[in-house]
Amino acid sequence: MDSAIKKQALRLFTYGLYIVMCQDQNDVNAFTANWLTQVSFDPPLLAISVENDAKSLMMIRNSEKFTVNVLRTGQRELAGTLGKSAWKAPEKLAGIHHTILEMGYPILQSALGWVACGVRQMVLVGDSTLVIAEVVDAGMLVEGQPLTMAEAGFRHAG
Amino acid sequence: MDSAIKKQALRLFTYGLYIVMCQDQNDVNAFTANWLTQVSFDPPLLAISVENDAKSLMMIRNSEKFTVNVLRTGQRELAGTLGKSAWKAPEKLAGIHHTILEMGYPILQSALGWVACGVRQMVLVGDSTLVIAEVVDAGMLVEGQPLTMAEAGFRHAG
Repeated sequence: MDSAIKKQALRLFTYGLYIVMCQDQNDVNAFTANWLTQVSFDPPLLAISVENDAKSLMMIRNSEKFTVNVLRTGQRELAGTLGKSAWKAPEKLAGIHHTILEMGYPILQSALGWVACGVRQMVLVGDSTLVIAEVVDAGMLVEGQPLTMAEAGFRHAG
Repeated sequence: MDSAIKKQALRLFTYGLYIVMCQDQNDVNAFTANWLTQVSFDPPLLAISVENDAKSLMMIRNSEKFTVNVLRTGQRELAGTLGKSAWKAPEKLAGIHHTILEMGYPILQSALGWVACGVRQMVLVGDSTLVIAEVVDAGMLVEGQPLTMAEAGFRHAG
């Protein structure tokens, strides 16, 4: 396999951009994700790939819950800010409005909408872990169009 | 949870449209998919959700291989045609140009590009099965923009 062509072909895939948020004890964290998809209608399940060395993966493993917050068009800078590693940028959430729902689900207030998820299963997949989770709550915040990887010009694929 | 809001929120997610193709013995099949994502860089892995009662799932279970063919803008009708159940529309591939590569990988000739995958693991996820697979080959066919669910106006989410 030609690795340059493999990279080009995988970069043809279409992705949105999301902020995944979690709380473990009193610690709240957020990271930017694009490798996620719904995987079942009934029950409503989604799967998200998280790097094995991410702080959030440890937190989600402990708390068994997280939210997916759907970014809207124009939020590229926010996606970049929250895309930094929490190990290197522990204060990255400073000044970014969020609330914590009952049951410990953090919500990004500037998103289009969100789903709250309970972890069902975690599967090691190469350099990442696939977190399979059930949607247990959801909310719509504002009308608008979602931010896409194509709009942002990010290249987290290949 | 309000199921209408859950549906609305899950429909905010951004998806591309792909034709997944497989061959088992002399039988070639194809189906339209949107619930798929890369999940690891090293090794390059992707995950795709396939309905438990799909003929292709049975074929992929047997052959342990498939291709993901990335549709291009304007191919909404092809996505609709190949989106029919193979049980109900066994001749749906008639007249649609495809070739079979060495090793039994079928390629859709009108796609933007393709990746060939070997199955690593299958995980039951509600009404579907998540097929986790390694990218073992790839090809680029033509320049262009990918077809998205937003362009097609399909609603396979919620």
